[in-house]
Amino acid sequence: MVRQERAIRTRRAILEAAASLFDEHGYEGASTTDIIMRSGLTRGALYHHFPSKESIAVALVDSQSEALEAPERNLRLQSLIDLTFQYARRLQTDPVLRASVRLTVEQASFHSPGSRPYKAAEDAVSRQLHLAGQKGELLPGVDIDEITQFIVGAFTGVQLVSHVYSERRDLPERVSAMWRLILPGLAVPGLLLRLRLSPP
Amino acid sequence: MVRQERAIRTRRAILEAAASLFDEHGYEGASTTDIIMRSGLTRGALYHHFPSKESIAVALVDSQSEALEAPERNLRLQSLIDLTFQYARRLQTDPVLRASVRLTVEQASFHSPGSRPYKAAEDAVSRQLHLAGQKGELLPGVDIDEITQFIVGAFTGVQLVSHVYSERRDLPERVSAMWRLILPGLAVPGLLLRLRLSPP
Repeated sequence: MVRQERAIRTRRAILEAAASLFDEHGYEGASTTDIIMRSGLTRGALYHHFPSKESIAVALVDSQSEALEAPERNLRLQSLIDLTFQYARRLQTDPVLRASVRLTVEQASFHSPGSRPYKAAEDAVSRQLHLAGQKGELLPGVDIDEITQFIVGAFTGVQLVSHVYSERRDLPERVSAMWRLILPGLAVPGLLLRLRLSPP
Repeated sequence: MVRQERAIRTRRAILEAAASLFDEHGYEGASTTDIIMRSGLTRGALYHHFPSKESIAVALVDSQSEALEAPERNLRLQSLIDLTFQYARRLQTDPVLRASVRLTVEQASFHSPGSRPYKAAEDAVSRQLHLAGQKGELLPGVDIDEITQFIVGAFTGVQLVSHVYSERRDLPERVSAMWRLILPGLAVPGLLLRLRLSPP
């Protein structure tokens, strides 16, 4: 294994160990020593990659953006809908993404990421909505910025409540319900029957 | 001042001191000593009313339900809409409610309130939606339980994002946007022009 590959693997091992701890116990509830123990690495290896616990949290928060790539579909609204199902699925299966969302939502003592992760999500949603508008999929007069902000806010809350009620097991059905309710105020009527509101 | 009145005032002083501290620093970031210092009371007075910091947090979470009384309006959907504006306004002005919501949303080390506060909000929303249905205000075939869960989830996220972006200053406009987007999938069309989607 060349040195660079090893460095990438070590970095990933630290992020995964920290993510599972932050996901379970929150930022305050996990110490650097806990992260070292769980990763099986030495203190030196950890500090070589990250100067502090906070820098690990920042790296985790920034890793969210990977999950925001919209899949290609014929209808742009379907791309947007499937982006939310894909994100929901990753929340169910990926502790790194779960930790990232928890660090975003909770106002911990570490320097809060503030609106940065929400802005990244808004960019992803807004891009699909603008493309949908260009293809005539949206009702005339809709305000894309307003809708973007609402979708990001609503999804944030829906996944939070789903986490509390069912550890996110019911998240796909909740995402379906979200789209059933907001598409009539968003999409041209002829499109409503052509959109799939269940996971791909 | 009779003894009972004094007891009520002392209890309220403890809750308000704890609320402002939890609102600013979260559950972990505020100690019993901090609460005593801010309330100006003695340790004895505090422990007379609350055996632990956790019991104060539980009392704060339960106080949320007061903010869930829907105002009387001719249209039941207007009652529901105004309930959300009223709740938004209280989030802007009342640190006790803010602390209660933060304690609900964050998975702190205290015994989490779990779904209890969400259930209380769902009961309030569901009651208005059932009355609206009886008065013919809802589209045929809508699923009231599904809509209730979505409204509570969406509002939770919308207030969270508004907190991050503007300390909740833009929350009323975000609540207006929420209703603009979901009412077409919820209310009979003839009603849409008769509902006020701004704070009363």
